[in-house]
Amino acid sequence: MATKISPLSGFPELLPEQRYVEQQVIDTLRHTFELHGFAGIETRAVEPLDQLLRKGDTSKEVYLLRRLHEESAEGHAGLGLHFDLTVPFARYVLENAGKLEFPFRRYQVQKAWRGERPQEGRYREFTQADIDIIGRDVLPFHHDVEVTRVMVDALNRLDFLPGFRLQVNNRKLIQGFYAGLGITDGDEVMRVVDKLDKLPTERVRSMLVEEAGLDGATADRVLGLATIRATDDSFVAAVRALGVEHELLEEGLAELAELVSSCADLVSDRVRVEADLSIARGLDYYTGTVFETRLDGYESMGSICSGGRYDALASDGRTTYPGVGISLGVSRVVVPLLARTGLTATRRVPSVVVVALTDEGSRPASEAVAHALRARDIACEVAPSPQKFGKQIRFAERRGIPYVWFLSDGGHQVKDIRSGEQVDADPTTWTPPAEDLRPTITSKEQNQ
Amino acid sequence: MATKISPLSGFPELLPEQRYVEQQVIDTLRHTFELHGFAGIETRAVEPLDQLLRKGDTSKEVYLLRRLHEESAEGHAGLGLHFDLTVPFARYVLENAGKLEFPFRRYQVQKAWRGERPQEGRYREFTQADIDIIGRDVLPFHHDVEVTRVMVDALNRLDFLPGFRLQVNNRKLIQGFYAGLGITDGDEVMRVVDKLDKLPTERVRSMLVEEAGLDGATADRVLGLATIRATDDSFVAAVRALGVEHELLEEGLAELAELVSSCADLVSDRVRVEADLSIARGLDYYTGTVFETRLDGYESMGSICSGGRYDALASDGRTTYPGVGISLGVSRVVVPLLARTGLTATRRVPSVVVVALTDEGSRPASEAVAHALRARDIACEVAPSPQKFGKQIRFAERRGIPYVWFLSDGGHQVKDIRSGEQVDADPTTWTPPAEDLRPTITSKEQNQ
Repeated sequence: MATKISPLSGFPELLPEQRYVEQQVIDTLRHTFELHGFAGIETRAVEPLDQLLRKGDTSKEVYLLRRLHEESAEGHAGLGLHFDLTVPFARYVLENAGKLEFPFRRYQVQKAWRGERPQEGRYREFTQADIDIIGRDVLPFHHDVEVTRVMVDALNRLDFLPGFRLQVNNRKLIQGFYAGLGITDGDEVMRVVDKLDKLPTERVRSMLVEEAGLDGATADRVLGLATIRATDDSFVAAVRALGVEHELLEEGLAELAELVSSCADLVSDRVRVEADLSIARGLDYYTGTVFETRLDGYESMGSICSGGRYDALASDGRTTYPGVGISLGVSRVVVPLLARTGLTATRRVPSVVVVALTDEGSRPASEAVAHALRARDIACEVAPSPQKFGKQIRFAERRGIPYVWFLSDGGHQVKDIRSGEQVDADPTTWTPPAEDLRPTITSKEQNQ
Repeated sequence: MATKISPLSGFPELLPEQRYVEQQVIDTLRHTFELHGFAGIETRAVEPLDQLLRKGDTSKEVYLLRRLHEESAEGHAGLGLHFDLTVPFARYVLENAGKLEFPFRRYQVQKAWRGERPQEGRYREFTQADIDIIGRDVLPFHHDVEVTRVMVDALNRLDFLPGFRLQVNNRKLIQGFYAGLGITDGDEVMRVVDKLDKLPTERVRSMLVEEAGLDGATADRVLGLATIRATDDSFVAAVRALGVEHELLEEGLAELAELVSSCADLVSDRVRVEADLSIARGLDYYTGTVFETRLDGYESMGSICSGGRYDALASDGRTTYPGVGISLGVSRVVVPLLARTGLTATRRVPSVVVVALTDEGSRPASEAVAHALRARDIACEVAPSPQKFGKQIRFAERRGIPYVWFLSDGGHQVKDIRSGEQVDADPTTWTPPAEDLRPTITSKEQNQ
């Protein structure tokens, strides 16, 4: 392999001790999702281009595939890499509807690709973890509560990460409020209001008047709605105080109030749930509940966990499969954290023990010790060469492996190289303390 | 989403109960690799095209990337999807050499892509599981033994799959033998001998004479070598009986004999290790040990687990990083097995319990039971609607969930819907039998 090796911008790669952190995040998510009855699936990395381009606003970011010696430059049979896991999942449900049981709960942890400009938290290749519940014809609202609770449960379990603020809203609430105000182009108003997290309120107000054609009083009430926030159902009274009435608004208020109160028992100092009436999820396909999530200390990255209710994403013309889901940007959370906080595994390898090697001829004896330890699920490795024991200990030390096992004619001993304590040990019974068995997660700052 | 949904040839997708089988394979591999001290990494899906095309024979199979609105049709900055995990890993080692500890053991389970014609066991998108050990400057031979033993250990643990026959050989043995016979173009001879598994011996002999320019006696001895097989070191005597002498041949014989005898204690009825002197791994970069593996009953698919020693794959000009590795084609094994044997999970969801719902108003009480069960790592779900209990039981049955939990004023009861047995239960103490806790793997034929 030639030289000239350099990283590709937007395609982050991790060192083994960093990958361990990402793997722990994924394992924790998967464990939580399975506890809640979600089945894991994967979809292929590619979709037909016409499926990928249905959401016009992301079309420019799609990666097309072409085989090297293919005649056409139009892409291999019109295939592109998926840019999220929702569009492929909707296609999977339609393709396999006859073989699935509904309501269908699935989780999916996979890579996705977008050709956009790389920046912190935005990558061209990234891992997402999605949960969705799909019904056939109908999907009761309690499933909106369910996916929220599952994600809050998962985020609570990721206790080595900073805190999360889950912001929830409801499209019916917004649309009903706008309809009650007599606004005809609600989508355009929503698009402008979406800019509140980037532009000053005054600027957004001007845009509502000039671009969306609202009168000043209506614009003020629209902005009044968008500034309401509450961690309980007190937002209902705040909305009512704005004096707008509409059936759809009532429906949205009731749903959002139920969502917030149903999560109250799971909320912690680290993971909060907040009704935030500015959240609208732009041009997406959502029809009810919408989610965004901010990572404490990384608010400038925007939402790292988003989703909502979509009643019409998957339909084969005869049957509609309404769904609700939420998607955590694993890379968006993990990669910036690794870089900024030095989050890392306590060791670079899974091994908890290095079995020392007295001389090359006694390798089978050392291997037998390793074999006995592995039979009891203790990860270990045999020293690569029969160097002086001091060097073998330093070999373990450099990898962060806490124990070294010595064989001698008198019997076996194991040394905790952190404390220096060395005790007699039998490979068929010795067990390391539970906290040493696997690497744990720490930050370099804490370590020093 | 419009209609017109159909599978893409060469991009297999699995139903949840099938994905569970694949996930079990991957989890078992990962667990085994970690027990042996291998650290997990992932590399990006894309590599610069000049890296991917170094192995000329696969160049036609590479998928190029291009962004939708990109000017150039030449591919996005010359990027393509990786077609294996070895080339990216060699690049990763060079890129991160200063941050890694050697010998570096890593495993990597990821998708790869090749644009070749799909057939059973050959897909355009597939999952591979690789282990490799990389040294700096040198890598002693005992690591060849190590990767073999790790993979044999892993295959032994995949006890729901058919048996495996690991075929090992050594390039030094072949090259030394050819050199001892005075053959100058060993690569060409090796290429012809590689056809022995597809063509009759007589045909290969003609090709050796006509295409590779050997005389008849030499061709006979080349074929004599290629037909030697043994499950112990008796192959050494068989090679010696062919009367060829060369230093490199002796080195290869010694290494191969050590490899075969060092695995003797791990060999089982299901997983055998055999010296097969016809194995050469074609045009690959191997320099010593080579592996191929046949899946019992699926021999026509060819090798499903291959690899070997590569002394010169990764080099930055100053330092060389010799390595040895082996790669299991997870999709190549799992996808045909699912199709042919109906291998599947005992249930379609992780849940072991459905908590029944008396009426919609008592959903919080049912959720509280589920919460208590999950707190003790028991996967469960609450029934989606308060249908008659008979229907809720059938809901569980259709998913293969073995238990239904009932709440009543008198207390809680749990029913094993297979036996009909129903007993009093407390959600803070009840635990299902260990064999029910997670789905297990079965085949549809066994089930019926």
